[in-house]
Amino acid sequence: MTTEIAFDTVRGLKSRLAARDITPSELVSVFADRISQHNERSKAFITITDDDAGKAAAALTPDDLASSSFAGIPYASKDLFDVEGVLTSAGSRVFHDRIATEDAFAIAQLRKAGALSLGKTNLHEFAYGATGENEVYGTCVNAYDPTRLAGGSSSGSAAAMAFGLVPATLGTDTGGSVRAPAALNGLVGLKPTIGRVPTAGVVPYCWTLDHVGMMTRDVADCADLLSIVAGYDPRDPGSQNIPVENYADALNADISGLRIGIPTNFYYERTDPEILAAMEKVKSFLCAQGATLVPVTFPDLEHSRAVSLTVQMPEALSAHSAYLQERGDLYGQDFRAGLALGQTLLAEHYIRAKRFVELYRQNTNALFDEVDLILTPATPEVAQKLGTVTTTRDGVDEAVGNAITRFTTFFNMSGHPALTMPCAMHSEGLPIGLQLVGRYFEESTVIRAAHAIERNEAFSIPLPNVDG
Amino acid sequence: MTTEIAFDTVRGLKSRLAARDITPSELVSVFADRISQHNERSKAFITITDDDAGKAAAALTPDDLASSSFAGIPYASKDLFDVEGVLTSAGSRVFHDRIATEDAFAIAQLRKAGALSLGKTNLHEFAYGATGENEVYGTCVNAYDPTRLAGGSSSGSAAAMAFGLVPATLGTDTGGSVRAPAALNGLVGLKPTIGRVPTAGVVPYCWTLDHVGMMTRDVADCADLLSIVAGYDPRDPGSQNIPVENYADALNADISGLRIGIPTNFYYERTDPEILAAMEKVKSFLCAQGATLVPVTFPDLEHSRAVSLTVQMPEALSAHSAYLQERGDLYGQDFRAGLALGQTLLAEHYIRAKRFVELYRQNTNALFDEVDLILTPATPEVAQKLGTVTTTRDGVDEAVGNAITRFTTFFNMSGHPALTMPCAMHSEGLPIGLQLVGRYFEESTVIRAAHAIERNEAFSIPLPNVDG
Repeated sequence: MTTEIAFDTVRGLKSRLAARDITPSELVSVFADRISQHNERSKAFITITDDDAGKAAAALTPDDLASSSFAGIPYASKDLFDVEGVLTSAGSRVFHDRIATEDAFAIAQLRKAGALSLGKTNLHEFAYGATGENEVYGTCVNAYDPTRLAGGSSSGSAAAMAFGLVPATLGTDTGGSVRAPAALNGLVGLKPTIGRVPTAGVVPYCWTLDHVGMMTRDVADCADLLSIVAGYDPRDPGSQNIPVENYADALNADISGLRIGIPTNFYYERTDPEILAAMEKVKSFLCAQGATLVPVTFPDLEHSRAVSLTVQMPEALSAHSAYLQERGDLYGQDFRAGLALGQTLLAEHYIRAKRFVELYRQNTNALFDEVDLILTPATPEVAQKLGTVTTTRDGVDEAVGNAITRFTTFFNMSGHPALTMPCAMHSEGLPIGLQLVGRYFEESTVIRAAHAIERNEAFSIPLPNVDG
Repeated sequence: MTTEIAFDTVRGLKSRLAARDITPSELVSVFADRISQHNERSKAFITITDDDAGKAAAALTPDDLASSSFAGIPYASKDLFDVEGVLTSAGSRVFHDRIATEDAFAIAQLRKAGALSLGKTNLHEFAYGATGENEVYGTCVNAYDPTRLAGGSSSGSAAAMAFGLVPATLGTDTGGSVRAPAALNGLVGLKPTIGRVPTAGVVPYCWTLDHVGMMTRDVADCADLLSIVAGYDPRDPGSQNIPVENYADALNADISGLRIGIPTNFYYERTDPEILAAMEKVKSFLCAQGATLVPVTFPDLEHSRAVSLTVQMPEALSAHSAYLQERGDLYGQDFRAGLALGQTLLAEHYIRAKRFVELYRQNTNALFDEVDLILTPATPEVAQKLGTVTTTRDGVDEAVGNAITRFTTFFNMSGHPALTMPCAMHSEGLPIGLQLVGRYFEESTVIRAAHAIERNEAFSIPLPNVDG
């Protein structure tokens, strides 16, 4: 019973609450117990706030509970989000004493909706890196195989879900940091359109590319959560004042007539053949549902990773300049090396990179004249072993962090909404994910197609066996 | 009679056209003759396209003429705007052979409206500098006193108007390059909100701060011209898809109840006392009309000029990198020195400057919670003598270009719409201007107040005596 609750969807938990099978306070207790049991192994949580969640749960009236899709539901957030009165560590010694004085925008929205913040999840220090390795708070492991990486940088948000410690999490995604770990852990991960969810109150890493994203157990929960955290906040210069939809309206809809773009040049060389085979099954299904597959050719992607880094590192450096002076010795080796790289870049380099970002945005927008969605794998490899430095395929080495985010990074630059979701199991017992990308502010089309795939049993995967 | 036509407003010329006192072809001839007569002295035009204008004039039907406020009206554009088939020199030897293959957005809008492009006007090379000095095409002189500067960088757009060579001009404004020369030449100059008029097809100088602007003889013409060139163009990443108003609706309106912000800390030290005295008269008038004066305090402006330059120079360098390699020897000394400065700036410096720009935008927006408009002088000094390097007041030296743009530069960073207009004559026989600044996309409020001031005869100034 506890396991069933632990791996239930938010909508499932809401039914239990509505049926009075369980109270919000009891839900908090169930998850708090599981965190006690699994946190040492998973390393998912940095700070646990079950006391606060319990108090908030006890204060909820029946009217409150009926008021929103997340009322009475525990959730957790990557430890970059400010939660008033709680430490925001950013996974770093540098912020060991940084108590937030107000809620981040997304946290405030969830608080208003009656959701219960159960704690703050682990991450790659300051979100710099896709493996989730953290020398201070430990490295999250994969629930499907604890000898493997959970992926990152939102490693704890993925691990917390995969170990059944919380039913929904917030993360951030600057190059795939929500989508990649979601895919490696068999979850739904969404990076909305740039500007759709304000970044106000989230520790910045690179404001040109930073997105607030989320992980859920299924597409319906994702639609509900997006409907709550989407919005406008003038404190975030990139925030867009565009009306928020009820994204759940896109569920259970027909996908016939949708034109699905299949990239002809999106780094598919050196992808695990089982992942490519899974993609073929997805394509066949989409065709059978009346969608049309359309080949699309991306702009020249040769420099895209260099462009992303040339934007990231000086922006990170700028965000950290004050802390570097005061607390430079507290930074971990990995991030410190990145900041050092940032110091060598000229304004001219950065500006050229920003112009590439703009070009990627325009050229990708142009692709969407011909298609409604673009389909890619989520990652070229399944979760790698802990400590892996490079992946090797077809005799070519690739840094593991680059491999993990190979299909995701581009859409942080282009800004388009992108969702990853499980679609198969690899013979090594690990989830395989796909990625659906949509037009600016057309998250509803992404959700529509994702839900159609999810409803087909051929694409469902087993839960991880974490309770032995 | 010719002089009357030469200095008539666009609305005045439209009445003459409607009354059949003159035809569009005859209008083109009148102005073409005046250009022949005055261009050597004024240095206003780089390229004269009276043949093209004449052909377009001859092709206009009576229906065409009735279709827009600028149909049949000659105009000229700063030689950064692409006009299909015509040289865009950018005031530089580097672009001596750059024939435009399509119209800039604003030019295309004017062509559709039936306006007649009479030519391309002189400027500071690549818009870098506020004096309008140009070693290739000569330096524009002030029509009120030809021993003085017209100001820049849209020097030719101002001189062409002040010498009665054309009734309206387009310019660009990155730090005051429309507003300052307009003010020094007794014209109305508008820099709309950033993103209001697309910059597509305009040679970029610094895309963070570049604005398309315009000069007219009065506020009504300014409202009409803005209504034509405002719009949205996805080729310009900064372009905003916000509905265009008929800005002429703001004319002849009451200004009682308007709250006018009077800055307490906007560099007023070291301003010509006659300019400050003129501002007091404007304030009294506004109060008498029922407006309220409200002191406003700007954010810390100490670094604002350095911020502007730190954004400008590496962006200019980035825009010019290809030309520098191929044609580096063709650049003038002034601009070359600026680009060299750009090469020394680190990405971190540029990013910090961009963050200041964002802060200025937010803090200035906050000021507009308390006021509807902000009033400043247009410039701290009237037009200086040709060859002036520094202005000296109260024993303090200031580079003349910095002095000219001291009150304008900030609003390119903040992005707010700003209009300059004449309000008095200096005892030295030169125009004094004021500047009105409004909220984002509230050009209509700026126009409303400017028109109220203009309708009061106390603020009108004589025309320059260029015809002897």
